[in-house]
Amino acid sequence: MELLDRDLLFPADERTRSIARELYGEVASLPIVSPHGHTDPRWYALDEPFPDPAQLLIVPDHYIFRMLFSQGIRLEALGVPTRDDTQVEHDGRKIWRLFAENYHLFRGTPTRLWFDYVLANLFGINTPLGAATADSHYDTIAGHLQSDAYRPRALFERFNIEVIATTEGALDDLRWHAMIRDSGWKGRVVTAYRPDAVVDPDFEGFAENLHKLGEMTGENTGTWRGYLAAHRSRRAFFKQFGATSSDHGHLTADTANLSDAAAEELFNRVRGGSADERERRLFRAQMLTEMAKMSLDDGLVLQIHPGSWRNHSPGMFSRFGRDKGFDIPTRTDYVTALKPLLDAVGLEPGLTVVAFTLDESSYARELAPLAGVYPALKLGPAWWFHDSPEGMRRFREMTTETAGFYNTVGFNDDTRAFPSIPSRHDVARRVDCAFLARLVAEHRLREDEAAELARELAYTLAKKAYRL
Amino acid sequence: MELLDRDLLFPADERTRSIARELYGEVASLPIVSPHGHTDPRWYALDEPFPDPAQLLIVPDHYIFRMLFSQGIRLEALGVPTRDDTQVEHDGRKIWRLFAENYHLFRGTPTRLWFDYVLANLFGINTPLGAATADSHYDTIAGHLQSDAYRPRALFERFNIEVIATTEGALDDLRWHAMIRDSGWKGRVVTAYRPDAVVDPDFEGFAENLHKLGEMTGENTGTWRGYLAAHRSRRAFFKQFGATSSDHGHLTADTANLSDAAAEELFNRVRGGSADERERRLFRAQMLTEMAKMSLDDGLVLQIHPGSWRNHSPGMFSRFGRDKGFDIPTRTDYVTALKPLLDAVGLEPGLTVVAFTLDESSYARELAPLAGVYPALKLGPAWWFHDSPEGMRRFREMTTETAGFYNTVGFNDDTRAFPSIPSRHDVARRVDCAFLARLVAEHRLREDEAAELARELAYTLAKKAYRL
Amino acid sequence: MELLDRDLLFPADERTRSIARELYGEVASLPIVSPHGHTDPRWYALDEPFPDPAQLLIVPDHYIFRMLFSQGIRLEALGVPTRDDTQVEHDGRKIWRLFAENYHLFRGTPTRLWFDYVLANLFGINTPLGAATADSHYDTIAGHLQSDAYRPRALFERFNIEVIATTEGALDDLRWHAMIRDSGWKGRVVTAYRPDAVVDPDFEGFAENLHKLGEMTGENTGTWRGYLAAHRSRRAFFKQFGATSSDHGHLTADTANLSDAAAEELFNRVRGGSADERERRLFRAQMLTEMAKMSLDDGLVLQIHPGSWRNHSPGMFSRFGRDKGFDIPTRTDYVTALKPLLDAVGLEPGLTVVAFTLDESSYARELAPLAGVYPALKLGPAWWFHDSPEGMRRFREMTTETAGFYNTVGFNDDTRAFPSIPSRHDVARRVDCAFLARLVAEHRLREDEAAELARELAYTLAKKAYRL
Repeated sequence: MELLDRDLLFPADERTRSIARELYGEVASLPIVSPHGHTDPRWYALDEPFPDPAQLLIVPDHYIFRMLFSQGIRLEALGVPTRDDTQVEHDGRKIWRLFAENYHLFRGTPTRLWFDYVLANLFGINTPLGAATADSHYDTIAGHLQSDAYRPRALFERFNIEVIATTEGALDDLRWHAMIRDSGWKGRVVTAYRPDAVVDPDFEGFAENLHKLGEMTGENTGTWRGYLAAHRSRRAFFKQFGATSSDHGHLTADTANLSDAAAEELFNRVRGGSADERERRLFRAQMLTEMAKMSLDDGLVLQIHPGSWRNHSPGMFSRFGRDKGFDIPTRTDYVTALKPLLDAVGLEPGLTVVAFTLDESSYARELAPLAGVYPALKLGPAWWFHDSPEGMRRFREMTTETAGFYNTVGFNDDTRAFPSIPSRHDVARRVDCAFLARLVAEHRLREDEAAELARELAYTLAKKAYRL
Repeated sequence: MELLDRDLLFPADERTRSIARELYGEVASLPIVSPHGHTDPRWYALDEPFPDPAQLLIVPDHYIFRMLFSQGIRLEALGVPTRDDTQVEHDGRKIWRLFAENYHLFRGTPTRLWFDYVLANLFGINTPLGAATADSHYDTIAGHLQSDAYRPRALFERFNIEVIATTEGALDDLRWHAMIRDSGWKGRVVTAYRPDAVVDPDFEGFAENLHKLGEMTGENTGTWRGYLAAHRSRRAFFKQFGATSSDHGHLTADTANLSDAAAEELFNRVRGGSADERERRLFRAQMLTEMAKMSLDDGLVLQIHPGSWRNHSPGMFSRFGRDKGFDIPTRTDYVTALKPLLDAVGLEPGLTVVAFTLDESSYARELAPLAGVYPALKLGPAWWFHDSPEGMRRFREMTTETAGFYNTVGFNDDTRAFPSIPSRHDVARRVDCAFLARLVAEHRLREDEAAELARELAYTLAKKAYRL
Repeated sequence: MELLDRDLLFPADERTRSIARELYGEVASLPIVSPHGHTDPRWYALDEPFPDPAQLLIVPDHYIFRMLFSQGIRLEALGVPTRDDTQVEHDGRKIWRLFAENYHLFRGTPTRLWFDYVLANLFGINTPLGAATADSHYDTIAGHLQSDAYRPRALFERFNIEVIATTEGALDDLRWHAMIRDSGWKGRVVTAYRPDAVVDPDFEGFAENLHKLGEMTGENTGTWRGYLAAHRSRRAFFKQFGATSSDHGHLTADTANLSDAAAEELFNRVRGGSADERERRLFRAQMLTEMAKMSLDDGLVLQIHPGSWRNHSPGMFSRFGRDKGFDIPTRTDYVTALKPLLDAVGLEPGLTVVAFTLDESSYARELAPLAGVYPALKLGPAWWFHDSPEGMRRFREMTTETAGFYNTVGFNDDTRAFPSIPSRHDVARRVDCAFLARLVAEHRLREDEAAELARELAYTLAKKAYRL
């Protein structure tokens, strides 16, 4: 019995399946290019062994604990750390067992695919996870994790990662990136500029963050000019550590393009704390356009990740904090929201703005038509809840006819779950090959074209779009 | 020639089809659990013969007469009763012929599948309905309806219904349920609590309804406390007749969570008739949360059926009244709307709130992410216009990857068309088996898991979610 | 090697494919009925040879140049004319080469399918277009275009066009239509009434347009009554040239149904230029209902094409003007927007209103439920960005179960790209046959019904709905 079939995710029809198999054969072993993600650079810097199986694979994975929680399992029992004094489970084996007993809940989800892939390909396990196998699988994994072959750098190489981007806040000193660089290790780990904490007036500690930003850069962040200069300075610093992109996670995709004078006045109100809700929103909107303008100069790719209502449950937020599975997608407009930015810089062929969405109704209606005409705009891959076989299929079906393949940017794993990275890229490659195979089987594409595209989608487009 | 093929609704690809066939084989004859519907308890109480074929199968079926009306056939000619003095057709045979001549209009619709199923499986008819066969099919059916084997209780048993829920208004005396209970018949028919008439200030006769509610319960519905107590009292009464759920059909999914004092003041304004539009909306929203809180105590499952603009055509409403095919879906928000209720009780694993939608764009964007984390929230099956093969397929494709299967609650037939109940469950079982078969064929699920899931989706989840 | 396979667009599964093939066999050579489009009547009137390959196939095709522009190719280099003095490329061969070198950008798009069809079927070319074949293909096409067999009327006949509608503004003198009529040529070319320029207060030159409308009709367009009479007069004039429909392209689907007095007052404010934004919007809304009322008298089919944000980029508009690929779909409501019109005339079985959408989320949620009950409302085919294999498939999957096939109106090519017309109808026929074949393969439809439907969708429904 095998956990993974070689035809995983390929259409059942034999004609299409055999085409998919062939296309996949040509991309299965291409190196991984991971232009956007959230792994911890500390891992690559220190190269320490990973902790126990539960701490590695379950406790930090919000896809996993949100599903278990939805079925009545408390996060404390899963070892998820609390901000108050509530005790949580620390016994990795107990956490693992609880997960294993409930593994059936993940049937039909991408988590199941990724997890089985990790069990099989990373740990050589080929019997299904469940209550009966929980302990033996735990032991197998725990055993491997003690060996040097399972340290971060060894895995990085084993995963055939050509380059991976992490994401750091604007105030990060990038010490781990410096350590990686200075270590002589050949693994290519780059950072990305995520300035939410100094761009969003509602971010915790915004005023203090501005102050720190000034200190770090020697610019006077008490003025609009100085504030912009400080951003430019940090961007340049991030570029020294390989950054080729910035990233922005706003509730909406709103952009603005105020006059310099109006922007300056707005900044002063925001900085002084007197800006109202509307003004704070406008400031975030304006800053996307400012970042795009800086990108014109320094070449960073601008990524916009809008539409997530963060921390939807105040009860959960107060106990567990951010990123605990309570970020919920919302309806997102792009046609009106992106217009100010597109009016300002959308016709620039030298600029790359990558737009993502959690609202699939915008794929065919808004994003593909926009990306299919504005030279600066590209479509990010199916994101977050849609980073799944059906989600990726819908992405292709709803964007390709209007935006084509070449206005998309390849795959992002967008994950902090390091061991799952090869599985995520593998799923994406398989789903894309399945889609291409359908086009070939329906005579909408020649096989040589599909082979070329398979490689572009798996590898080349990401390198090119992100300038890696 | 057969009206129904044994492979109905199974994917054409032989690999997938044979898996679907096998899965279906294991669930095809499971008993029917119907936790939400609108059959008339009077039928089971009195067990009288059904009327003529047209009065049974056509006149009360809004799926049927709306389609005929859309093509220019007057409802009067179909025997649909009017509220004014307009004469309508009473000759069942004439109505039947008109339907039969236009049966081609239903090609590609679920009505066609259900109707053929009823013709074949209930009445043993195996030639297509049309102008040429109208009379003979009419005679066949009319003949059967006179026999005892076609009385409600006999059909109930023949349909292998394990339990069926009807829906009654809060002011209903449940006399038919009492008669069923007292009759010694073993068929399990339970009620459900539908309080729209005493919860929605815009409902016809709201003030009088409150008065009646007070009389029935002995509570003072002139006060907020008394009004809530009256609800509790009615819910307890409904539970005596097997109710395990309440049901709420609002235009939106809005909920609110006011302080006791604010809720009391709002109730007073609403009761006094001085509440404006916004306040009346707020009252409905508040009452959903109140009902959820009562559910915490008495265990009733809370069903929310939002998003239908009832009686869209005033001309049709004034002549024909409610439920005449002019209820039109509208765009529906859940993320903002449900937040007050979820903030109040959404983390309670002991509570079950089942959310339905007529807006499929909310499946992947809102409902699956919400149900995939809040323990109290489950997803109702594809509803109304989406209770169809393509609609059910989209439901699974757009919710499973984020919410899994176990945050869904099985199938609801939600119908007043009693003879069609087995066909509706059969369609749902076939579509679910087809979906599962695809997952198996694509190696995303093992066959033993799919078999287990097929049974859950067809039978177990409904029993469990609705506590039946 | 063939550019087109005989099984193009048919499902890969052999069972379904063979059904699709058979269905398609019965409709492949049916005459083309093109009830809505934008070809130039001048072509049919003068019957002059078409210009060079680039001017015929690339320069006027916004699907083509928008995609090239999105990838950084300037419109000037593609010969797209400017409104300022910017020079553009005039050498057809250079434009053609630029296109050919970038032909891979169209992989997966309908443009690719249409273009290959034209190359193969119209010009006998059977090697893929690309940099290497650019010149020889150019020569082949240019050679053909010089022959009489490639003049407009000859192509019209070769394309087997039974009737084609063009679209003219209300102020058009229809001279080309008159010339066609007087020429004795048997080709049937009809016009359609598009009054945007005299209905939309924001249209360039609106006041002057009203004046001209008065002059042309002898009516006093300074009064509401005279203005309406002028419309009636023009509609009658258009009917003399075969018009069976009017067409309306508004940003929203808003309709209104004001009293005569209120409409008159509104008209006076609009005419006088004192109407604000809201009033101008209300006027457009009112005029849709007025047109529907006129249709009750004169029988013209009313087409509503809402939801396109025209000229999204002001920079591109100022240089290149309208229709340059910068029209972007927006979220569109129908349930609220169409209500005033439907309240007024929606129950009239003698009226036909055809609604289109660029917002696919409205298919299953709004449009199918509305068209599935209102006798006056029919669904236009998948439009513009959705006039594509996946788009047409989604249209059927999301509308058929609720509205059936008979509340749809067949295919519109809606194009100004004359040579592509057969390919567009062919794609639509193939996609519909593929959809029907799936229904047959899944035993949801009998094969004889599917054959009947294939013919209706390809030919009969368009003739009937548009009264052609």
